[in-house]
Amino acid sequence: MTENKKRKTDKVKPQVLKGFRDSPPVEQIAREKMLAKVREAFELRGFLPFRTASLEFAETLLGPHYSKDSLAELFGFRGPDDVDMSLRYEFTLSLARFVAGNPDLPLPFRGYQYGNVWRVDKPGPGRFREFMQCDIDIVGSQNMLTDAEIIATMVGTLDHLGIASFKVRFSNRKILNGLIEYAGIPTEQGQEVMRVIDKLEKQGREAVILELGPGRVDPSGDEISGLNLENAQIARLEEFLDIAEERGGEPLERALSLLGDMKASREGVNELRAIDGHLETMGVDHSKFGIDLTIVRGLSYYTGPVFETTLLDLPDYGSVFSGGRYDNLVDRFLNRSIPATGSSIGLDRLLAALIELEALKLQDATSQVLVTVMDREHLPDYLAILRRLRTAGIPSEIYCGDSRNLTKQIKYGDKVGIPLAVIAGSDEFTAGTVTVKNLAAGREKARLTSDREEWLKAEEIQETIPAGELLDYIRRQLAAIP
Amino acid sequence: MTENKKRKTDKVKPQVLKGFRDSPPVEQIAREKMLAKVREAFELRGFLPFRTASLEFAETLLGPHYSKDSLAELFGFRGPDDVDMSLRYEFTLSLARFVAGNPDLPLPFRGYQYGNVWRVDKPGPGRFREFMQCDIDIVGSQNMLTDAEIIATMVGTLDHLGIASFKVRFSNRKILNGLIEYAGIPTEQGQEVMRVIDKLEKQGREAVILELGPGRVDPSGDEISGLNLENAQIARLEEFLDIAEERGGEPLERALSLLGDMKASREGVNELRAIDGHLETMGVDHSKFGIDLTIVRGLSYYTGPVFETTLLDLPDYGSVFSGGRYDNLVDRFLNRSIPATGSSIGLDRLLAALIELEALKLQDATSQVLVTVMDREHLPDYLAILRRLRTAGIPSEIYCGDSRNLTKQIKYGDKVGIPLAVIAGSDEFTAGTVTVKNLAAGREKARLTSDREEWLKAEEIQETIPAGELLDYIRRQLAAIP
Repeated sequence: MTENKKRKTDKVKPQVLKGFRDSPPVEQIAREKMLAKVREAFELRGFLPFRTASLEFAETLLGPHYSKDSLAELFGFRGPDDVDMSLRYEFTLSLARFVAGNPDLPLPFRGYQYGNVWRVDKPGPGRFREFMQCDIDIVGSQNMLTDAEIIATMVGTLDHLGIASFKVRFSNRKILNGLIEYAGIPTEQGQEVMRVIDKLEKQGREAVILELGPGRVDPSGDEISGLNLENAQIARLEEFLDIAEERGGEPLERALSLLGDMKASREGVNELRAIDGHLETMGVDHSKFGIDLTIVRGLSYYTGPVFETTLLDLPDYGSVFSGGRYDNLVDRFLNRSIPATGSSIGLDRLLAALIELEALKLQDATSQVLVTVMDREHLPDYLAILRRLRTAGIPSEIYCGDSRNLTKQIKYGDKVGIPLAVIAGSDEFTAGTVTVKNLAAGREKARLTSDREEWLKAEEIQETIPAGELLDYIRRQLAAIP
Repeated sequence: MTENKKRKTDKVKPQVLKGFRDSPPVEQIAREKMLAKVREAFELRGFLPFRTASLEFAETLLGPHYSKDSLAELFGFRGPDDVDMSLRYEFTLSLARFVAGNPDLPLPFRGYQYGNVWRVDKPGPGRFREFMQCDIDIVGSQNMLTDAEIIATMVGTLDHLGIASFKVRFSNRKILNGLIEYAGIPTEQGQEVMRVIDKLEKQGREAVILELGPGRVDPSGDEISGLNLENAQIARLEEFLDIAEERGGEPLERALSLLGDMKASREGVNELRAIDGHLETMGVDHSKFGIDLTIVRGLSYYTGPVFETTLLDLPDYGSVFSGGRYDNLVDRFLNRSIPATGSSIGLDRLLAALIELEALKLQDATSQVLVTVMDREHLPDYLAILRRLRTAGIPSEIYCGDSRNLTKQIKYGDKVGIPLAVIAGSDEFTAGTVTVKNLAAGREKARLTSDREEWLKAEEIQETIPAGELLDYIRRQLAAIP
């Protein structure tokens, strides 16, 4: 009894931390396929892969005057050598630190980085504390051609992933800076105002107006405090929201008619015209990008053009590829500015979207062929078949488990999702033949008749062929699987 | 003054944490190439990619009775929701947790996982606190065929990476368990003894004998305490070391002649014979694997066959691909055992080795062509060229920087390592031609004459061709670059 009790308490529950998760093979195979496509699209456009450390000094992420509390809002802790450190929560700060620390890096630097980021968010459906991002950036140029290249790459990447219907929409923080001035709001308050206006699409106009004013109570009952702007200020912001939300026509003309007296706004309009012109001459499909003055982005470090991407068939996914220009971020590390612009994919959300859109075919197994072991006496023969398959480049495995029962072996292949199984017993070896069972066909028929067990045994899905024809036969069978 | 002072202290030093580092593009391009090859080799053999969370509950990594001190020896901390958690320091425990938590996983499960692991080791040359590992495992079978598959995959992977000369050497912990019994050492002390014997290759026989006995002082002056075994016990261990270190002949015969009375050793010998036989029938090259009784491995969880891989041209790199069977590890999470075997690559060390062996061609740039902007009036024409190149699948970029100076643009292409540059001015556009400069050839000639600046300007490395022939010409030029 005591022994048993001790044993029980000695066990560790096989669980993951709240907000964390594992990726089983079917998901990871899909993720790797997506990642390969994304990387191809980036490298076709000259972006260079690089990597920064996952853990950073706390001040790299939080600035020099961070508090213990702000460290606890990240996966931050006092680590080895008594240093405050934290897992990154995004890539842009690490990129800025990398550029500042490598003065010999040829500029403009076209870089991309992918990997995990960690955030202490409240976990929820589709919201995790560890998730994958992939960033592209061009550092070291103020030329609007770089912003056009970022947008062209965003479009090219989603095209390459086979997404039929999406739109990259962009605006310019400078237009909004002019608006803040026009509304008579102090510059220091500008960032707060933009953070509220950024909620326009998700929360709607009414909620935004309340947050600009006295605040509001959200549907879950939480009180959201307002910025307490004056009515006259809000009225001027609303003038802009009216022209921003108006569809069609010439949004930049409308912006100029309202904010043409503001230098910043004029500059922002001119930049957007330049980007639009570059995209035009680059031959980027018109239906896949467009200026949209409602785009703001929440992050404080944006200084110019800002981008968002909506999947038109899945608008609820929000923006899957977003970014903007951040000309002052490298300043945190250097006594000079290095201008930069970039965009970031939320890879996990994009993966979910690709699966939902059926733009990615799900695949369970890497092995295309399972070589079964009907008779252990013949193991050398099975291993010879395995060798032939692999030498021919056909991903395959031999049944390695402890069961000698052929039906169990076939069931294993079916459960893993391997399309074909090779079977051979004394009869086959004597006759110089081999039997190939098409498990994929069996699964397909079972799907229609819902009798999986029976179909796995059915003679109809198997064929006995001369051993010498095995490779050709398998190649034909694999090619025929939809 | 105050303003300036404030500004200075507001800067953050652009540095990485001790033991951490970034990977610049040239290294990351090489890493991605290596990783693609490794994954191809695994998937050809039916291994399935999967991923586990980077952070785990402390008890997953340390067992249920861990101390605060042991948590601080990892990158462990009290995280959100007041939970003790830690970054993984290897993958095997996470795999065991994953298998235990997914009872529906078809067994045997052939899985592979790659990614970062984190260790609070003393940083030094080639020793980092964040590094990349890649594990393959087969879980759910006691069949020695699985161990043979692991070894065959190790050999196949290094072959696929183009490493000419390596050897996977393996032994069996069971033989050593018999040895512990033979030497009259209590079973509980067996793991400590193996940890010391594991140092044989690195530290030499004398150091090992001292550590088994009274202890020793290492070259840096540190005292290493000994196990204080009796002389008679050490003498028996030495009998084994003698036969283990003897080259040639039949090591398993020698093992049996010494330890044949020990049931565990006999079992171990039989298992190694089975593995050897499977590898033979699988057609794995004889020169690339072999039984070596000096192989022990330091980790405590191994229960059977253990593997190591030496690069014969770089023996100082130590083992680059190592593992073994661990039949009891899943027990930490379950009331039953699930047998398993696997092996792990130290990807960073392997990458360094591949570069040193020149098995991997270093490549600086992803872009093959830089389209220069000699005359901004012609930007639409340059963008049209860029579009043609990319549509043809030739990775390329347009110069995006702020400089209008052609020489500076060419220098940028040279610094990044782009092989070709396209140049066109009014003359070319009028004549319907385009000039292509072979920067790779210029670099090669400059290497011989050490006059890089001049070679970048040389007419000799450039050619003016009809614009219509651009794609064909570029393809030919790229194909001719060594």
